[in-house]
Amino acid sequence: MSALTAPEIEQWLQECLKLAETAASEDEVPVGAIVIKDGVIIGRGYNRREQDHNPVSHAEITAIQEAAQHLKSWRLNDCTLIVSLEPCPMCLAACQQSRVDAVYYGAKDLKGGALSLGYPLHDNPKMNHRFKVLFQEQADCGRILTDFFRAKRSLPPKSS
Amino acid sequence: MSALTAPEIEQWLQECLKLAETAASEDEVPVGAIVIKDGVIIGRGYNRREQDHNPVSHAEITAIQEAAQHLKSWRLNDCTLIVSLEPCPMCLAACQQSRVDAVYYGAKDLKGGALSLGYPLHDNPKMNHRFKVLFQEQADCGRILTDFFRAKRSLPPKSS
Repeated sequence: MSALTAPEIEQWLQECLKLAETAASEDEVPVGAIVIKDGVIIGRGYNRREQDHNPVSHAEITAIQEAAQHLKSWRLNDCTLIVSLEPCPMCLAACQQSRVDAVYYGAKDLKGGALSLGYPLHDNPKMNHRFKVLFQEQADCGRILTDFFRAKRSLPPKSS
Repeated sequence: MSALTAPEIEQWLQECLKLAETAASEDEVPVGAIVIKDGVIIGRGYNRREQDHNPVSHAEITAIQEAAQHLKSWRLNDCTLIVSLEPCPMCLAACQQSRVDAVYYGAKDLKGGALSLGYPLHDNPKMNHRFKVLFQEQADCGRILTDFFRAKRSLPPKSS
């Protein structure tokens, strides 16, 4: 698959942002992800960890699972994952497991991102699949997180 | 939580082996995992990647999800995960995300295991949760995999 252009990445990141906004409206850390194939979205996900009681309900994992159901295969060859925030090691490794072609993200996660933490799981010659991971800054992808946590801090703590 | 004794680990690995046997009987790579809390199994999983069309349907992820549903929380504090095979990076990172106390495994995975590949995701001081990962060799945990792949190789390739 050919690489996405900067305007295409921007367009897909806007789709991720809509999903992140849904997460925020449900009081979840606002991250959204999509999987595309042949220019069409075949998987969508947003972070639902709290409401699902599920530590793997990250945006990327949900989008990957939906895409795999759509293709009726765990192999997401020729697919691209786009996500508003740098994937954590679990999600980048899930991209590796699912054999996506490429990952694009719109904001860095210096504390929890796989690359920021020093785990380039997409590019290990010992592993059976390698792919590219590219950062294209999109200010709203970071801003929605900053706003979410700022609002959290300004609220009184929950009594329960 | 206190560490498990060698006989206890052996006992729990036998439970994992039963799950791995179920996987093999369903033509899936035979790996089984459990999550225990206070000496009781609260999550079980075996590899179902092919039949689920799901790249994250590894034994550990399924066991973690079942345990989290049981506890109605994504936080598996004071829980231990036991698995027949060394976890891949995705699964070890899922253990980190879910905040398990400890992971034990019965066979090394030199090609795909997180530790064998050089990703000690359980022990990174930059990450918000650290835990111990221990290997206790259990020959049957490796043998079931060897037998599975040997049988695969001896079969004629699928026509479809």
